[in-house]
Amino acid sequence: MNAPERLNALSDEMLAALHSKLDVLAEDRQTRVIVLSGAGKAFCAGHDLRQMTAMRQAEDGGAAAFKDLFDRCAALMARIQSLPQPVIAQVHGIATAAGCQLVATCDLAIASEDTRFGVNGVNIGLFCSTPMVALTRSIPRKQAFEMLTTGEFIFAPRAAELGLINRAVPADQLAKETNALAEKIASKLGTAVAHGKGAFYQQMQLPTDQAYAFTGEVMVRNMLEADTREGIDAFLEKRAPDWQQ
Amino acid sequence: MNAPERLNALSDEMLAALHSKLDVLAEDRQTRVIVLSGAGKAFCAGHDLRQMTAMRQAEDGGAAAFKDLFDRCAALMARIQSLPQPVIAQVHGIATAAGCQLVATCDLAIASEDTRFGVNGVNIGLFCSTPMVALTRSIPRKQAFEMLTTGEFIFAPRAAELGLINRAVPADQLAKETNALAEKIASKLGTAVAHGKGAFYQQMQLPTDQAYAFTGEVMVRNMLEADTREGIDAFLEKRAPDWQQ
Amino acid sequence: MNAPERLNALSDEMLAALHSKLDVLAEDRQTRVIVLSGAGKAFCAGHDLRQMTAMRQAEDGGAAAFKDLFDRCAALMARIQSLPQPVIAQVHGIATAAGCQLVATCDLAIASEDTRFGVNGVNIGLFCSTPMVALTRSIPRKQAFEMLTTGEFIFAPRAAELGLINRAVPADQLAKETNALAEKIASKLGTAVAHGKGAFYQQMQLPTDQAYAFTGEVMVRNMLEADTREGIDAFLEKRAPDWQQ
Repeated sequence: MNAPERLNALSDEMLAALHSKLDVLAEDRQTRVIVLSGAGKAFCAGHDLRQMTAMRQAEDGGAAAFKDLFDRCAALMARIQSLPQPVIAQVHGIATAAGCQLVATCDLAIASEDTRFGVNGVNIGLFCSTPMVALTRSIPRKQAFEMLTTGEFIFAPRAAELGLINRAVPADQLAKETNALAEKIASKLGTAVAHGKGAFYQQMQLPTDQAYAFTGEVMVRNMLEADTREGIDAFLEKRAPDWQQ
Repeated sequence: MNAPERLNALSDEMLAALHSKLDVLAEDRQTRVIVLSGAGKAFCAGHDLRQMTAMRQAEDGGAAAFKDLFDRCAALMARIQSLPQPVIAQVHGIATAAGCQLVATCDLAIASEDTRFGVNGVNIGLFCSTPMVALTRSIPRKQAFEMLTTGEFIFAPRAAELGLINRAVPADQLAKETNALAEKIASKLGTAVAHGKGAFYQQMQLPTDQAYAFTGEVMVRNMLEADTREGIDAFLEKRAPDWQQ
Repeated sequence: MNAPERLNALSDEMLAALHSKLDVLAEDRQTRVIVLSGAGKAFCAGHDLRQMTAMRQAEDGGAAAFKDLFDRCAALMARIQSLPQPVIAQVHGIATAAGCQLVATCDLAIASEDTRFGVNGVNIGLFCSTPMVALTRSIPRKQAFEMLTTGEFIFAPRAAELGLINRAVPADQLAKETNALAEKIASKLGTAVAHGKGAFYQQMQLPTDQAYAFTGEVMVRNMLEADTREGIDAFLEKRAPDWQQ
């Protein structure tokens, strides 16, 4: 995200750019892992309040435009989770409101220790109701409720304890640690990762028996991939796999 | 809760008093936050076993009366979460069985460090099946299962680690810390908090896409409130908001 | 599990033996708690890859046999949770892939501190999609996603922090600690424990209001047990219960 002068706010332009970029990456077989980061002082400070205020000029006071904005934002969150590649948020500075939602939505997140996270819309009279969807699916409910109603920030080490991010690292190690995680995942068989990520969020929403029926079929398809056969053969023969993908 | 001689057991009278009080508070626009605490040595020790034993005199052995009791208790839990105001449990002494359920159900909870939490009905042959509903929605499942089947207590610092409460504080700081949290939330725009709390528990039970559709509409309604417009305008103009509510 | 030469892999024989043994134990009123452990160096290393590779000889490349295998494995997981008795995993050495799933599925788990846990199928090109069902229902989602896509191990103390196990203990205390937990639960009223476990997993999959309606009925049935009446009477009379079961 490269709009540092606006703290990478999720403006109309930013949402469109992210959708467009992710649609391209989704089809790019050379891309095994995606890292989402922000230029400047902040990862992302949430929605663009000036644009939203301008929408109030419409006859309906902005109702239709607001709805459309939240729909596009929710679609971005869904897109991140529907991509075949894992998405790692590389977080620094601040991640607030929809910026915090973005972190909660990415598959993985590493943050510099001094990053502040908040769902602080309540401070200006706009409760973070959509960020709440992602937040409450990542951290325990009482801690989520407190963040949402007090608007207080938590720092990265606490975010790691709560499960909002994978870990906090010193600021000067952030890029290195994120790359190391990305490279590790990129070294795996991409089709296997895609099978797994494709099932991850879906199975969580199913009753356990249906989740097993669904993932059992995913496992069968995974087993029937030629590269998986080679991977298992190589393991049994104690040699390195010779993958074609 | 003011029945210290019975450790604030959820007797018929206590349930009726809580229902009645919460119904009044729900309509009171001057009340921004509710603090639930217990007089005497305990926060709440669960159901009133003497009253329950008396119910056994009925022709059906108490079946209908027990069902009615558990229905009223579940309705109390639902009422707490359906109130427009956040409810903070200020917990001390012991919070056991339905008393622990009450803590798990409140939106927020602060406890003195020496508070003991337990779902210990199993010790007398009555598994805490209804408290389990609230407990398993607040803490990880293996830790919940252990508490339910061993009947063992955990202390407040461990309860905070597990997510059952927001934090443990020294006993002599309990009232002060609870008030500070209540005042912070009371300083926010009440309509925004009500919009958010109204969506909090509902959206958690929906599939993610439906949760976004639902909270997107909540955000639109929140945006259209005059006080929220003022809050955002004030923020963009770097001044304090002049809220009417 | 007693196939140490295969690291207690969930082979056809192992799955059949576990199903058969659990079916017998389910009917055994003398058995109050079940401890699942593994002979040799590992608790369980997951599926038997040699057997799976042999299944590829079939005309369909193994598709039907794989599906049948995952169905039998999922049925084992469901059986563990549907037993009237709590099942404690006593874990040492390694618990990987479906072996890690087994730990996540058991009601309780204690592990020696040096135990390594992993869902590392991704390393050989087979994403642990079915183990993911149990894992994501036990630990926070970002931590689960990381384990699944990196294939990295975590040690027992970290597994305890995440909620995958109840606690990590020194290796020479493992049997003793597991027995202490088993004996504590076995000292409770077995019918009460069975009522509660029978509702534990089911109510978690229901909306909260339905979960309360369901567990309210479970509580009524529990209250009407003669031994529960005796347990409550004894408590009120400050004496030890004289249970018949």
